[in-house]
Amino acid sequence: MRECRVLIITMLCLMMGAMSGVAQQNLWHTAGVVSPEVMDDGTVTFRLYAPEAQSVALVGDFVADGSVAMVRCEDGVWEYTTPQLASELYTYSFVVDGMRDVHDPQNVYMMRDVGTQMNYFITPGTPGSLYAAQHVPHGTVSRVWMPLEDGRSRRMVVYTPAGYEDGKGRYPVLYLLHGMGGDEEAWLATGRLAEIMDNLIAAGSAEEMIVVMTNGCMRHDAAPGYSDEGMWRPYMSGSMDGTFEQMFEEVVSWVDDHYRTKAQRAMRAIAGLSMGGFHAMQISKIYPTMFDYVGLFSAAIFRGEEGVELYADLEAKLAVQFSRAPQLYWIAIGRDDFLYDENVRYRELLDRMGYDYEYYESEGGHTWRNWRVYISVFAQMLFK
Amino acid sequence: MRECRVLIITMLCLMMGAMSGVAQQNLWHTAGVVSPEVMDDGTVTFRLYAPEAQSVALVGDFVADGSVAMVRCEDGVWEYTTPQLASELYTYSFVVDGMRDVHDPQNVYMMRDVGTQMNYFITPGTPGSLYAAQHVPHGTVSRVWMPLEDGRSRRMVVYTPAGYEDGKGRYPVLYLLHGMGGDEEAWLATGRLAEIMDNLIAAGSAEEMIVVMTNGCMRHDAAPGYSDEGMWRPYMSGSMDGTFEQMFEEVVSWVDDHYRTKAQRAMRAIAGLSMGGFHAMQISKIYPTMFDYVGLFSAAIFRGEEGVELYADLEAKLAVQFSRAPQLYWIAIGRDDFLYDENVRYRELLDRMGYDYEYYESEGGHTWRNWRVYISVFAQMLFK
Repeated sequence: MRECRVLIITMLCLMMGAMSGVAQQNLWHTAGVVSPEVMDDGTVTFRLYAPEAQSVALVGDFVADGSVAMVRCEDGVWEYTTPQLASELYTYSFVVDGMRDVHDPQNVYMMRDVGTQMNYFITPGTPGSLYAAQHVPHGTVSRVWMPLEDGRSRRMVVYTPAGYEDGKGRYPVLYLLHGMGGDEEAWLATGRLAEIMDNLIAAGSAEEMIVVMTNGCMRHDAAPGYSDEGMWRPYMSGSMDGTFEQMFEEVVSWVDDHYRTKAQRAMRAIAGLSMGGFHAMQISKIYPTMFDYVGLFSAAIFRGEEGVELYADLEAKLAVQFSRAPQLYWIAIGRDDFLYDENVRYRELLDRMGYDYEYYESEGGHTWRNWRVYISVFAQMLFK
Repeated sequence: MRECRVLIITMLCLMMGAMSGVAQQNLWHTAGVVSPEVMDDGTVTFRLYAPEAQSVALVGDFVADGSVAMVRCEDGVWEYTTPQLASELYTYSFVVDGMRDVHDPQNVYMMRDVGTQMNYFITPGTPGSLYAAQHVPHGTVSRVWMPLEDGRSRRMVVYTPAGYEDGKGRYPVLYLLHGMGGDEEAWLATGRLAEIMDNLIAAGSAEEMIVVMTNGCMRHDAAPGYSDEGMWRPYMSGSMDGTFEQMFEEVVSWVDDHYRTKAQRAMRAIAGLSMGGFHAMQISKIYPTMFDYVGLFSAAIFRGEEGVELYADLEAKLAVQFSRAPQLYWIAIGRDDFLYDENVRYRELLDRMGYDYEYYESEGGHTWRNWRVYISVFAQMLFK
């Protein structure tokens, strides 16, 4: 049995720079156990109090082979220290005697992806620091409800950059769409949109802009828990039948009515991931005068429902859109993404028709890790 | 061994009324396990997949004696069904072989209280329905940053009622303060402020109002994770040295500058729980012309730091405040609250000085269950 290294008071240095804080014990918690402990060199120690467990494993997107055994030390605390990790936002959970999805009770930082809550942490350096709150001016994040013509309302999340409330200026708008199983909270929680925009704008790397995050699943008015559907368990759902895309003119019009926007094509962007990339492709095509910047992140290009009128005649509609080519038509995907091949096909179509686009290929697959990079890169190219 | 009743597809009827949804399986989750399953009659079944566990207990604020053993059924799923529970928002976790604070991986609904994340659910009826999103118009919830004179900024949460964005009208403002260890997120997450206000306003039981939730711990600019302090573990901290109270004039002035408020004493309320109740008492006293409605919920009346000038001469300052008595001075506390006696002392002081106040005594102690009731009652008395 290893000597136990449970720290009663320890310095947590999760972020780069001068930030530090004494981790004090919560009144109601296992005294003394600190987890995760992120060190300046990028190693991370996890600790879990499981006094009678026979085996404890750590599962995380930073663990080779997906899972690694933890070691029992004294006092029933299990421990594992990673090798140096590259700078990133990582998620993890524990497996205790075959029980999966055990959260770290010492770590209050959690994010939900579809129907799963996960603990997360950030290691020092870049891009991790981009995903963490820094000492920079912060934008406002609002959850607003847009009334629809049919009498219902739909919830959306709106980011307005620092200074918006104190000025009279108008701003360009990025519409940012989630994937299947996501909702209007996804880009904010898992995509770290507010932190990324605050940090890019403060660094002068991105223009000040409003970011509007809608809910692209027409079956739901809002993210789970925020509508009268009650506390349903989120699952893989979405809308690829044209209804979301048709509503989008109303969304843009409502945003232009309620925010100080620059209401013109040159000052509007639309982007999305997976299903949201499909939506961005469709919406920019059916409203060809609306968006000058289009971002398709791991887009589900050819996954629309069969027989939907709106999706028909792709080439003819693209011809209209590209008759006045967007300022930027940006396609990004990871080499291991299950949608890689259909993105190849789509680019071949664009090539054949002679349309300009930019292509960004990364490592990895259909992951938030990639989407955080894509939005960080894309946002810097907008409205310049 | 009991027969296993793991449901593959089950109707989740968490809310009162017509809401229902098919609980579908998340791609990445234990197939088939549904937990918690809240029935219309108020019984609730919990299920946890823990195939090798020797003992599993359920811990919750609805469990007599605090914890109850769960029963192992087939397939490694442990189960427990409650008796009928009164309508309420309840929190819970599991204890598995001595490992505490195990979250329910099937339940994405979590709230944080200080340094602890907890699963929660709501049982049918009242007051539970008041704490759940209903089919009513929803207000906007914004996280905003208020710049301070010293160059830093402080984060706050602002609720504006449905219709605010579409009108030109002015609104009264309730300033709502958290307790020690809390932050600007506490009333929203654990206090269910937005749901309560939406529901009360829609029912015509409360006036339309803006609610401003500040951060009353001057050591931090923002709730954990939102400032450049990084991802520290929240702990029991606060400010009872006068600095928060002294800043409050700046807060009110900023709110009046940035929202369409009715900027007058008759249209301002201040309330808080525990330390926030102390703050509300102090602030309403040191700014006697500012608030016509004061709510002290389980207030830490006599816990201010020694020797703070601002806290001195209580009776003389109260005399100034009550020389023009507030429209409502409301004191609420539970019979089992550890602050009960000092609230008795404070009421004796007010009685001796002949000042009018209303007193609301409930069962229970220093709990969010009480504070949700207090805000629901208090909000209905404001600005009428």
